[in-house]
Amino acid sequence: MTVMNAYQLLANQGWVVSHSRSGYVVAPQVEDFPILSHQNDPQITESVDINDFVFDILQASRKKTMTNFGFAYPDPNLYPQNQINKSLIQAARKMPASHALDNLPPGNETLRKIIAKRYAAQGMNINPEEIVITAGALEALNLSLQAVTQAGDWVVVESPTFYSALQSLERLNLRALSINTHPKEGIDLDSLEKTLETHKVKACWLMTNCQNPLGFTLSDEKKIRLVELLTKHNVHLIEDDVYSELYYGGTKPRPAKAYDNKGMVLHCSSFSKSLVAGFRIGWVAAGTRALQIQKIQLMSTLSTSAPVQLTLANYLSTRHYETHLRQLRRTLEQRKFQTWQLLRDHFPKEANAYYSTGGYFIWVVLPEHVNATELYRLALQENISIAPGEMFATNQQFIHCFRLNASLEISDSVVLAIKRLGLLIETLI
Amino acid sequence: MTVMNAYQLLANQGWVVSHSRSGYVVAPQVEDFPILSHQNDPQITESVDINDFVFDILQASRKKTMTNFGFAYPDPNLYPQNQINKSLIQAARKMPASHALDNLPPGNETLRKIIAKRYAAQGMNINPEEIVITAGALEALNLSLQAVTQAGDWVVVESPTFYSALQSLERLNLRALSINTHPKEGIDLDSLEKTLETHKVKACWLMTNCQNPLGFTLSDEKKIRLVELLTKHNVHLIEDDVYSELYYGGTKPRPAKAYDNKGMVLHCSSFSKSLVAGFRIGWVAAGTRALQIQKIQLMSTLSTSAPVQLTLANYLSTRHYETHLRQLRRTLEQRKFQTWQLLRDHFPKEANAYYSTGGYFIWVVLPEHVNATELYRLALQENISIAPGEMFATNQQFIHCFRLNASLEISDSVVLAIKRLGLLIETLI
Repeated sequence: MTVMNAYQLLANQGWVVSHSRSGYVVAPQVEDFPILSHQNDPQITESVDINDFVFDILQASRKKTMTNFGFAYPDPNLYPQNQINKSLIQAARKMPASHALDNLPPGNETLRKIIAKRYAAQGMNINPEEIVITAGALEALNLSLQAVTQAGDWVVVESPTFYSALQSLERLNLRALSINTHPKEGIDLDSLEKTLETHKVKACWLMTNCQNPLGFTLSDEKKIRLVELLTKHNVHLIEDDVYSELYYGGTKPRPAKAYDNKGMVLHCSSFSKSLVAGFRIGWVAAGTRALQIQKIQLMSTLSTSAPVQLTLANYLSTRHYETHLRQLRRTLEQRKFQTWQLLRDHFPKEANAYYSTGGYFIWVVLPEHVNATELYRLALQENISIAPGEMFATNQQFIHCFRLNASLEISDSVVLAIKRLGLLIETLI
Repeated sequence: MTVMNAYQLLANQGWVVSHSRSGYVVAPQVEDFPILSHQNDPQITESVDINDFVFDILQASRKKTMTNFGFAYPDPNLYPQNQINKSLIQAARKMPASHALDNLPPGNETLRKIIAKRYAAQGMNINPEEIVITAGALEALNLSLQAVTQAGDWVVVESPTFYSALQSLERLNLRALSINTHPKEGIDLDSLEKTLETHKVKACWLMTNCQNPLGFTLSDEKKIRLVELLTKHNVHLIEDDVYSELYYGGTKPRPAKAYDNKGMVLHCSSFSKSLVAGFRIGWVAAGTRALQIQKIQLMSTLSTSAPVQLTLANYLSTRHYETHLRQLRRTLEQRKFQTWQLLRDHFPKEANAYYSTGGYFIWVVLPEHVNATELYRLALQENISIAPGEMFATNQQFIHCFRLNASLEISDSVVLAIKRLGLLIETLI
């Protein structure tokens, strides 16, 4: 009720607009994003630097006293831990000696069939044979990238992008072409088109739904044009789609893969953000590349852990998942909205906090002269973590931005941490 | 008793020699190995080819009717599946919502402490902080290789070698230097020394105990000289030590790591061969490289599956593991010896089957003109798999050899398969 009242209040002030089925959505504020608009050429990076932030933030997240605004996962208390544990026990009770063989690549058959069914529910015809179970979406993405590239190749990424894309590129000695990506509209397709005409690009790695770190979901029109463009230039799309279950709108957004007739899209996802974080189970719908992916997997991790595959196959055979997802979306939407309100209340007015209708990230843009990495260091000393913008690019373009995890329960300490962050920003402005 | 009688019989015939504590060992037959002796220069391979055999054999192993002599794992029925399942259930009963965070790299603390204790039992002082839990030994090896090399670097491997070493080198754009490796004495250290003097080698990846595919265990003297040589030339040793629990001698062989004072050895192992295959839990004792390994892990698989880490921590806290290992060693020794006898009885006399006192592999050398890859294809049609020698090198040097898994229970169908293999070899001679 509080949330609805707040929405109403904001709608009256012009901050949010009513939307037919999904309640309220935030009014587009495209004019507030000066950071990306004047760069149309792709940012070329010959070799990408690994960012130690990622490691530091993950390690910092282990401190029980830390307010984890920098963390990449939703609040672990939002997962159905008891149900999952029950499925684990059931799987353990009947795990045969042959469990290792049964769950070798491409992975547990029941699990692959369930995933195929979930694609079918979105009108997509994916054969279970095209699906390979992996150690989280991250392994799926890495294997996909290896399958379609060779050292020295050009790969298109977003700017800002999920940092692991940059890290993987570095590890495989690939060269990054970073394309402008708008916080609400997503990747600049005109810029992409120009880049495809001037560079021999082999792959494009991006997020189509609830992008990390910005939060936007690409429109269907853009997804269609994206796939057309890439297909025309014979470029594989490695589609990172781990947040699409966390939409707040009426229907689950379809991936770009839904518009792919030529087998150009390798669709990667996982259960790590929507069901259970620590199991490390993901997959790739790799089409004709499925066999090749399995061969690469065989030399990197051999296969995905059998008992966790069996556990997920057990859990997903029940109706619990849909019930859980409905609850999870509702809670995430409420918390994100409340957090966003708190940011508006307690951050200096020069700080722009951008809401999006899905996932649990809020992208905060500070005035250009403010260094968010410095803010990160100052905040860490007070047991508050944020994810500085520097993590999401190979240059300093987003050094005045940061990503904030808005999945935390709004407790006194969370409110206090937001106030404290606001004061720290104030000192830096 | 039958085994002891058979040993006695063979001892009388000069085939085996009595050994003080471990019962009987096979008499050294160094003169029977002409295959490697005349090559002293390292085999240089600019780029290594991935071998599809590995994949095909693993897939073939899923066929329930297959006699799996080609398989890399011991008979899954030798694992304590019930005890493991119990530990899984216990871990599931108390798995907290924070399981993902608690088990992030470097991995579960209890598990790392138990592993450190097992090192201590061998007189090795390894701090739990130096240990990183990984998705099987294969991930440990891959991460270690990444930590100490850059694309284009030279890496020393054995010849023949564990095929994954070759695959990893290819994947990371490294260049292989294959050093002669004797089926009983192991790597040719003189050849290694010469190679280290002429090439700027960055790493050396090899197996010191129960080597795959040959079966030898390096003597302590050779381990000491190996570490001295590598240290002198500032070359890291990536030590693959997944079979050392499967020794049949009196004491568990120490790894080369035991003789390393300068932090040059990254010691990789797992529970996949000795306890449970499908869990995919391994580790690396990485010394000062532990932090770097974690950072690389963070971008490849993020972390190892939490419930399986918790399960192993639970199981290994009991005394079951030692009891299981004693039983496992006894059974493997019996089966391997019986299998070796069967090979001697049913293979043509031109086929040399080489026994070693550890693990479960037998290396079979056919006359040089016989193509073991053809044998593999013919056998596969009759539901018998073997691991052809071609898998273990980048050239055709071992095309007349194959590796045979001797962990299978000696059933009628196993005897029949051996007879059938013998006949097929006959047709090829």
